[in-house]
Amino acid sequence: MPATATDPRTARPRSWWGWGYADAHPDDAECVALGALLPGTLARPLPLPRVADLSIGGPAATPPASLAHLVTADPEERAAHAMGKAYRDVIRALRGRPGRIPDLVARPGGDQDVADLLDWAGENAVAVIPFGGGSSVVGGVEYRGDAHRAVLSLDLTAMDRVLEIDTTGRSALIQAGALGPVLEGQLRPRGLTLRHFPQSFEFSTLGGWLATRAGGHYATVHTHIDDFVQSLRVVTPAGTGASWRLPASGAGPSPDRLFLGSEGSLGVITEAWMRLQERPRHKAAASVAFADFHRALDAVRAIAQSDLAPANCRLLDPGEALLSGASHDGSTVLVLGFESATTRVDARLETALDLARAHGGRGEAPTADRGEAPTADRGAGADAAVGSWRSAFLRMPYLRDGLARMGAVVDTFETAATWDRIPALIDAVRAEVGAAALKATGHPATVNCRLTHVYPDGAAPYFTVAVAGRPGDEVQVWDDIKAAASDVLHRHRATVTHHHAVGRDHRPAYDRQRPEPFALALRAAKHALDPHHVLNPGVLLG
Amino acid sequence: MPATATDPRTARPRSWWGWGYADAHPDDAECVALGALLPGTLARPLPLPRVADLSIGGPAATPPASLAHLVTADPEERAAHAMGKAYRDVIRALRGRPGRIPDLVARPGGDQDVADLLDWAGENAVAVIPFGGGSSVVGGVEYRGDAHRAVLSLDLTAMDRVLEIDTTGRSALIQAGALGPVLEGQLRPRGLTLRHFPQSFEFSTLGGWLATRAGGHYATVHTHIDDFVQSLRVVTPAGTGASWRLPASGAGPSPDRLFLGSEGSLGVITEAWMRLQERPRHKAAASVAFADFHRALDAVRAIAQSDLAPANCRLLDPGEALLSGASHDGSTVLVLGFESATTRVDARLETALDLARAHGGRGEAPTADRGEAPTADRGAGADAAVGSWRSAFLRMPYLRDGLARMGAVVDTFETAATWDRIPALIDAVRAEVGAAALKATGHPATVNCRLTHVYPDGAAPYFTVAVAGRPGDEVQVWDDIKAAASDVLHRHRATVTHHHAVGRDHRPAYDRQRPEPFALALRAAKHALDPHHVLNPGVLLG
Repeated sequence: MPATATDPRTARPRSWWGWGYADAHPDDAECVALGALLPGTLARPLPLPRVADLSIGGPAATPPASLAHLVTADPEERAAHAMGKAYRDVIRALRGRPGRIPDLVARPGGDQDVADLLDWAGENAVAVIPFGGGSSVVGGVEYRGDAHRAVLSLDLTAMDRVLEIDTTGRSALIQAGALGPVLEGQLRPRGLTLRHFPQSFEFSTLGGWLATRAGGHYATVHTHIDDFVQSLRVVTPAGTGASWRLPASGAGPSPDRLFLGSEGSLGVITEAWMRLQERPRHKAAASVAFADFHRALDAVRAIAQSDLAPANCRLLDPGEALLSGASHDGSTVLVLGFESATTRVDARLETALDLARAHGGRGEAPTADRGEAPTADRGAGADAAVGSWRSAFLRMPYLRDGLARMGAVVDTFETAATWDRIPALIDAVRAEVGAAALKATGHPATVNCRLTHVYPDGAAPYFTVAVAGRPGDEVQVWDDIKAAASDVLHRHRATVTHHHAVGRDHRPAYDRQRPEPFALALRAAKHALDPHHVLNPGVLLG
Repeated sequence: MPATATDPRTARPRSWWGWGYADAHPDDAECVALGALLPGTLARPLPLPRVADLSIGGPAATPPASLAHLVTADPEERAAHAMGKAYRDVIRALRGRPGRIPDLVARPGGDQDVADLLDWAGENAVAVIPFGGGSSVVGGVEYRGDAHRAVLSLDLTAMDRVLEIDTTGRSALIQAGALGPVLEGQLRPRGLTLRHFPQSFEFSTLGGWLATRAGGHYATVHTHIDDFVQSLRVVTPAGTGASWRLPASGAGPSPDRLFLGSEGSLGVITEAWMRLQERPRHKAAASVAFADFHRALDAVRAIAQSDLAPANCRLLDPGEALLSGASHDGSTVLVLGFESATTRVDARLETALDLARAHGGRGEAPTADRGEAPTADRGAGADAAVGSWRSAFLRMPYLRDGLARMGAVVDTFETAATWDRIPALIDAVRAEVGAAALKATGHPATVNCRLTHVYPDGAAPYFTVAVAGRPGDEVQVWDDIKAAASDVLHRHRATVTHHHAVGRDHRPAYDRQRPEPFALALRAAKHALDPHHVLNPGVLLG
């Protein structure tokens, strides 16, 4: 059994090195079955890593007695806060070479605790890595470098309360450390929901979503957590402040938008007033098969440029569709879902299906809008393809870790670009990233693509690459694949990330993408708010 | 005839001191009729002001020969660039005490011209006031103070071209100096529209809308120009840069959102890729009368919290409804409009009307959705109340200037707040601003209110105050009213502006509203991008 901490909510053991719950990991036999899907993987899975093998020493800094009750130097806690959950993190743990283990883990109970910890860190050159659910897949929660005396992981999950609910304006004041199920559990009795369901939902926090501009439930219109922010409270080394609770404002540049996406480098988001939704009463879903991926892109564009606003509009290429069980005949599959708390949605679905058919889609009979009672349902549809896709979606990170144990290299990366660039971009990623993976490993790679969010002016493709690795050299292979991916995205002017954040893994590409005047402004803001440069050093800047 | 410059597009004379076209101003007889509506105004209108009476001297700085072709010191040009078009600006001109006349007016032809002018200004302590259509109502385009050697008004309107149109992704690269009709005229042949129609549409530019986060056509969902920005190009004293053209991105804090609302204080926006719309084919509109304003608020909230997304959802209180001819019986009137390029909108209108009736509304027969050919129609409806309201809307600034000539004091201010605060806020503004106006003038004031934009979590009320002034002391009266308005907004935690910007008039209230960490960041960004502090000094900061 690997070293784990038990999740106090679910009484289930959390994995310190891999995704989610340790008891949900594929067992050795499943790992072998997964490995059989990729030629060239290992015959037997790598053993589960143990914290005891990491030889974790004493912490390099000790906080004063006044802060001692907030801080632990327990090795298992420290190991579980050393990295995020990218493949790169998982394989480093499996190979016994995890990222730098933090010296201390702190669990503040409120703003003053956070401010006190930041004060101490600033005075003692201790790097502070804000940590929510720890699900970063971009190296966002680990320390790299040696410019600091010690490293403190600032775990916000003790601050997980919904402090206030305004039912008139449908919003709530929520502490940033609340994990998805924790905050939804507190909203449900009032019939409301934040309805933000990233793949990491169970293992990520409101603060993490805000700091990384996470992509959420809705495939169109309000796609990011940003759109649901009414106000933010931020603790910085230079002081604490909150924006006003407003439905909208034109008073200067948006203060919230500077902290959204700041990845813990400008301050620690401790609370937010968030806009909520009523649970949907009307739902209708359908899937549409296409023989041709490029015609399917045209269909999705037509739907995105209508004002139909589907809640779900995922296009799965043949590989994705096969993997998730949505199709077995090489079809591209479009999964469409509509939902509303107010009005029937059948007509919108029918119009969308008409658009899809006009571009060669073969629609299945849609699930009728039955005017259901509100549900806590996480998906937006109910037919077979939709359902199987959703289950596969939640299981994917566990399977990735099973593949990692078989010595496979798996990367997922996502982007967004304008429609004029989308077809060539996707073709280029398939060709060039596949070639890079082959070159790095000698094995053929699987490169799959889906569109997760769509806009009138463009779309967000999400890619999965899997290939047998070079045993012991998996990190280098991953880095080579990542470099190839970043390069092709850059040449096609596709963003380095649509919703996974920059972290440390995307820094080179981000630096090339960011306009220089904004870089100057951001650097200046960082220096003003974090004069000792202790906040999450290495993400975004520096 | 007042001193004017002729608009090269329309061959109509622009007013240097008042709103819009000089030939559209009310004549003396109309002014007298307007004055009769407000007890205590003058018997005869103030005379039209003349530039020749301003005794404008030579400029305090002269640019080098290399820039001479971009710059003029013509007194009429300088007078027309001295101020915006707030009541405060108009009455100062009428009383012969306009704001500081700029020394020079520059009309750059491209980015390099802008950069060269900024370089010269930085080296010579010349304040640079970016100027689009000059329609600011918050003191956004005038110089106050004496820290600079000279003042240059940077008029962007020579940069007015649509440089590129992407029909696949429905977007266009547009120069920032394009006035509303100029850019729409270039988009129309391609069947596309930006569909941003502020009251100032004819006399404001894309760059001005972006720099002030202008409110636009849509009453719900995408209410501000911000939402239509794909990328921005910004020239700053520290360098020029453009964000990538992206439908969405999660790569760090949004670079565009720092410059949106920066009011020319961080850089000069010179171009933007903007998201466009197809012209709507389906429209349906109706108006609903309510006996009770507070019940009407509940109706509007129900509609805003549905997902019906009306394009127009204006609530006019009895005074507004009377003034615009939408109602003559003391009713509150809700003007509803739906539009779509894709689908029929009758059903959405019917559902909205049901919601309104459930809260006591008496709906008129709606205008049917006739599936019209796409139109360039600026409004969203066709029934009598809608039409009369729209004409009155466009005429209002001219009438305000007519009232100013009769010695009246007129202020319009707008805000936004969460729904829980809206009823008490509106009642308090009526009572307290009315009392402040009475105290300042001895005359009873008219205070009207409408909601211009609505959200699931709140609304944006817009107020108009009119009262006979103290002759010769109108600016002080206006300032007293403004202070009372700012105070009541602040106590109710309503934003200092939803879409009119901060400028100089809102600075004290903005300073109190802005969270301190953001103020530190903004000040640092300003210093990094504008190290000589020449860009629009006095707005937002400093």
